[in-house]
Amino acid sequence: MDVSSLTQRLKINKDAVDQFILDFLPKHSDIKEIQMLFDMMRDYPSRPSKGLRSSLCILTSEALGGNLDKALRTAAALEVFQNWILIHDDIEDYSELRRGEPVLNRKYGIPLAINTGDALHAKMWELLMQNQKTLGPTKTISIIDEFLRMINETTEGQTIELAWVEHNKWDLNEDDYFLLCNKKTSWYTCITPCRLGATIAGASAKKQDAFIPFGSRLGIAFQIQDDILNLKGDEQKYGKECGGDILEGKRSLILIHLLNKANSADRRKVLSIMSKNRCDRTTSDVEEVLKMMEKYDSIKYAKATAESYAEEAKKLFNKIFQDAPSSESRRLLEDLIDFMICRDW
Amino acid sequence: MDVSSLTQRLKINKDAVDQFILDFLPKHSDIKEIQMLFDMMRDYPSRPSKGLRSSLCILTSEALGGNLDKALRTAAALEVFQNWILIHDDIEDYSELRRGEPVLNRKYGIPLAINTGDALHAKMWELLMQNQKTLGPTKTISIIDEFLRMINETTEGQTIELAWVEHNKWDLNEDDYFLLCNKKTSWYTCITPCRLGATIAGASAKKQDAFIPFGSRLGIAFQIQDDILNLKGDEQKYGKECGGDILEGKRSLILIHLLNKANSADRRKVLSIMSKNRCDRTTSDVEEVLKMMEKYDSIKYAKATAESYAEEAKKLFNKIFQDAPSSESRRLLEDLIDFMICRDW
Repeated sequence: MDVSSLTQRLKINKDAVDQFILDFLPKHSDIKEIQMLFDMMRDYPSRPSKGLRSSLCILTSEALGGNLDKALRTAAALEVFQNWILIHDDIEDYSELRRGEPVLNRKYGIPLAINTGDALHAKMWELLMQNQKTLGPTKTISIIDEFLRMINETTEGQTIELAWVEHNKWDLNEDDYFLLCNKKTSWYTCITPCRLGATIAGASAKKQDAFIPFGSRLGIAFQIQDDILNLKGDEQKYGKECGGDILEGKRSLILIHLLNKANSADRRKVLSIMSKNRCDRTTSDVEEVLKMMEKYDSIKYAKATAESYAEEAKKLFNKIFQDAPSSESRRLLEDLIDFMICRDW
Repeated sequence: MDVSSLTQRLKINKDAVDQFILDFLPKHSDIKEIQMLFDMMRDYPSRPSKGLRSSLCILTSEALGGNLDKALRTAAALEVFQNWILIHDDIEDYSELRRGEPVLNRKYGIPLAINTGDALHAKMWELLMQNQKTLGPTKTISIIDEFLRMINETTEGQTIELAWVEHNKWDLNEDDYFLLCNKKTSWYTCITPCRLGATIAGASAKKQDAFIPFGSRLGIAFQIQDDILNLKGDEQKYGKECGGDILEGKRSLILIHLLNKANSADRRKVLSIMSKNRCDRTTSDVEEVLKMMEKYDSIKYAKATAESYAEEAKKLFNKIFQDAPSSESRRLLEDLIDFMICRDW
């Protein structure tokens, strides 16, 4: 994997997408409060991020014969989606940091943050409607249909996760986790970006559908890696608080493995910590749970599972692209997929 | 004004719109948590409501030569808009009751309620895209543009109101209030429903634009009436807690009038109550402010202002419809406008 050319290309895509979004979003108002709304809408889009989803869309499109220009608006809409849903997710998950800064609701309060997410949500559809200018009506409609499916899946996934927290549900197995991952991560991180790229490039419906099992597995590998980073990652690089998932009571594969493997005394201990209210869990609680995860090799197990999903994803990738010409975009796309699985930030 | 035929027609429209929405929204899932999401999405749409906005759209369309069938999907999307934005507003405003029942976030918690609003928001765009089947691409796109404008205006209005609360801003005059009303109420309650009706009926752009000054005034009259009902209405009929706006710290015309007319001792007293945190304001605080409003004839003043806006709106209405044939729909539309201004629930 050629890291430097992938990094370069991610930066080129990211800069183009960022510029597009910041040019598109409203900037100035004479009314002080509306100026504040515009500033809040531009806040998350102005923070540093990797732009993985937009690059996945752009590179998939290119690898199937499309180009950056045609994919740019849709890629920007994907990032706008990510931004508005993160504003709301950060409230829903009681998060503290996003991309190295306090979450929006800690800067402006929950009421204004919810409303800002809604304003940004509408802007996403405005962007998507403008695809008519460059892609024509048929592709514009197909792309909107993809976004509708993506939001259905993502809000269903988020409901599953929030309901588990709300109802203090812990009797979970791996299949529960994979269902959650598929809905809350695979669709918006992998399946939809790839399907959008394929749509823009004019690929057949059959080819588009092949991205579902591929993206599903890639998304699961990506999410497990994200869960591991959340526990062990470099906070500076990762941009969220370390161990935040344990504080938030997230049901990760690691935690599910631990609960299913621990002896009954240890299981009780972990459950007594994880069943606390979010605000009652302390840093030493997080340490305690982390120690247990080490004791039962749960992180190791999660790593192995992620690798096996990544392997499967790569096999499916090769099948999808078996007839595609060996282009630079295709090589970069393969590198991007490797990066999504192995990244350390 | 023939109340019984208007009431009958409102009920016919409302039943048709409700049926359309409940048939459209997802119903059943084998996954318990997703079933809960569907139930939450169907919660507000299943509560009793007047359906004023959808009827305004349907009757405007009919009065300009359209029919119920063609307007139904768009009218349903207007109500879906109203439902998802109310789910979020009820969190933002710390409301307690909506349509006679606890607000969604008091039933399921804030995280699940925010997410449900988002899922319902996406469903609104799905509905609007389906207009292609019955209205063709040009009208479908125009209607979507109207919704985009409406959400921009409404989220800007909501920002203004929330920022005033957040920043404890009280040096406000009537123009501030009218700007707020226009953005937070007139667009989504009056201007957009009428413009949508005109679009569906195939009216000219000039005619559509004439609904802006008309709807702006009607919306202001409507909002002032709503402010009055919030203080003096029958809680059972009105479906929200009485005096809730004072508890929530809402800047109504009545309160702005009071603050500008009160002597300095009374003004200080009112401000000391209104500047408290929302959770520290008591029922006796509400009583105190209500008494002051009576003392300074602020409610009377608001009533007179509403009447003058209503008069202006009706003049503009007659101008818009001067060439339209005198149909039953037109008479019902006039009655509806009267009802919106004079309603007691």
